[in-house]
Amino acid sequence: MRLVSFETKGQERAGLVLSDGRVVDLYETALDLAATGQFPGGTAGCEALKTVPGIIAVCAAVLPSLRLIESEGEQGRGTLIEAGDYGLLAPIPRPYKNVFCVGRNYIDHVTEGYKARGSEIRVPEHPQFFSKPPTAVTGPHSDIPFDPKTMARLDYEVELGVIIGMQGKDIPQESALDHVFGYTIINDLTARDLQRKHDQWFKGKGLDFSCPMGPWIVHKDDIADPQDLAISLSVNGEVRQQARTSQMIFDLKRIISDLSQGMTLEVGDIIATGTPSGVGYAMASPSFLSPGDVVRCEIECIGAIENRIGVTQR
Amino acid sequence: MRLVSFETKGQERAGLVLSDGRVVDLYETALDLAATGQFPGGTAGCEALKTVPGIIAVCAAVLPSLRLIESEGEQGRGTLIEAGDYGLLAPIPRPYKNVFCVGRNYIDHVTEGYKARGSEIRVPEHPQFFSKPPTAVTGPHSDIPFDPKTMARLDYEVELGVIIGMQGKDIPQESALDHVFGYTIINDLTARDLQRKHDQWFKGKGLDFSCPMGPWIVHKDDIADPQDLAISLSVNGEVRQQARTSQMIFDLKRIISDLSQGMTLEVGDIIATGTPSGVGYAMASPSFLSPGDVVRCEIECIGAIENRIGVTQR
Repeated sequence: MRLVSFETKGQERAGLVLSDGRVVDLYETALDLAATGQFPGGTAGCEALKTVPGIIAVCAAVLPSLRLIESEGEQGRGTLIEAGDYGLLAPIPRPYKNVFCVGRNYIDHVTEGYKARGSEIRVPEHPQFFSKPPTAVTGPHSDIPFDPKTMARLDYEVELGVIIGMQGKDIPQESALDHVFGYTIINDLTARDLQRKHDQWFKGKGLDFSCPMGPWIVHKDDIADPQDLAISLSVNGEVRQQARTSQMIFDLKRIISDLSQGMTLEVGDIIATGTPSGVGYAMASPSFLSPGDVVRCEIECIGAIENRIGVTQR
Repeated sequence: MRLVSFETKGQERAGLVLSDGRVVDLYETALDLAATGQFPGGTAGCEALKTVPGIIAVCAAVLPSLRLIESEGEQGRGTLIEAGDYGLLAPIPRPYKNVFCVGRNYIDHVTEGYKARGSEIRVPEHPQFFSKPPTAVTGPHSDIPFDPKTMARLDYEVELGVIIGMQGKDIPQESALDHVFGYTIINDLTARDLQRKHDQWFKGKGLDFSCPMGPWIVHKDDIADPQDLAISLSVNGEVRQQARTSQMIFDLKRIISDLSQGMTLEVGDIIATGTPSGVGYAMASPSFLSPGDVVRCEIECIGAIENRIGVTQR
């Protein structure tokens, strides 16, 4: 089940992407079901289906209905929108808080970073958390407006994104994955000069448009093992990052558990779980993104997002 | 003008605190004004006055009305709530994104920190930004539930809080203060062991209830020079921090300007601007907060917030 936020005729809606690329509008389709008593909560219950965060919040109650709508959609029933008639947004276009992020979570990336800076390699013993603001979030196919003043050393980082589906605090590792709703792809675009200059990573990680996300959220039931997925990134077709999520230093259970110690994780929270080696600044000859470059992030069982670095804004 | 979020009879509302401690309910009072054509936008326009973020968003249009309601309130007119009949919440009880924070922004605090860690003093050349999640925000008089598992080395940090009133990006220093709506008091409670253990500061700064705020937002017109205010903190009546905001390394203009480079600041955004020297971990004999301690943060022209460290939760 691939849950999307999309725009059609100037309206923002939530839907499911079907195998032929059409999208089924969840709110409109649920309204039709409710009219014949086939949707839990009736017409009022459909309201929650207007947005992806709304759906995640009521997921336990509506999951069977979503599955039904999806299979009916595959057979051409429901309010369907043709592939060319909608635009995908980030699955959660405007998160209710900053996106949680984990730094230095693949050993090869840790190593390349210290090598690039010429300092001794120090493998983290605990996850390093930082955040990206909601203003950074942008769509899976959006152009990234290039601003030379802040983006002179713009770098990419493909990451597996976790979407929280159940509130929790002090979550034990054993039950951590019960709190997950699904998975997505995040590109943690980073201004390396600002990251260094401001010491703490927030400033270099917080630029507008620096968090492309999507193309959808895949429900956890459809991913057998999120801890063993191929993850890769290419720039203009050249593969730069290629790894498996099994290579994480801190696995998803550990990340969720550690993050939630003393801090409540809420429904709709987003966690970017770190990037593998191959980032631009650590290359033998450091290479940064510039206007015209196309960055493609791909994760097995999810799909791909592709963003072009746009023309200079000023 | 002291703008508050308060709770009365189970409802959350926005108001102005009067000189005798009573609160005037802005929505109810504006409705009465609208009925006689004395409120811009009529009855529909009153909706924005239900919450503090709503008020900040329309401030330019309603400021004269707010001033009128305040002066009428001082004369006993309007929907007034007695001092004992309401409870103050954080002025923005649930921010729309993480609170922006600045680290190491008073020279004496920078010095004490390096001394405590026994390392060479390095004064930052650029502001160090990090964030606290919306789940951390709590009221100006709330108890802080003490959890020994995460709060074994709980420390205080009094800070001047800036509330953004006008959206902006790449804001020049010269016009930075035009983007401010007003000022408040923030205690950036910090779990020192988590801050150290997780390397990036987010985890140690992100605990639930670790961002007491208030007691109100003072409109900027009522503070002649926010860059020259006495700022202090006491624990159980013992003064621990005492400085002036003139001692900031990076002044408010610089903070707002730097933070907004490449990143849009939005209406209702909150910035905690750093703490002076005197924190617990840097004392000759380090001292952390424990259950029963009362922490009072005070800033000239604003007021004071006072939070008790509560009993152990588990």
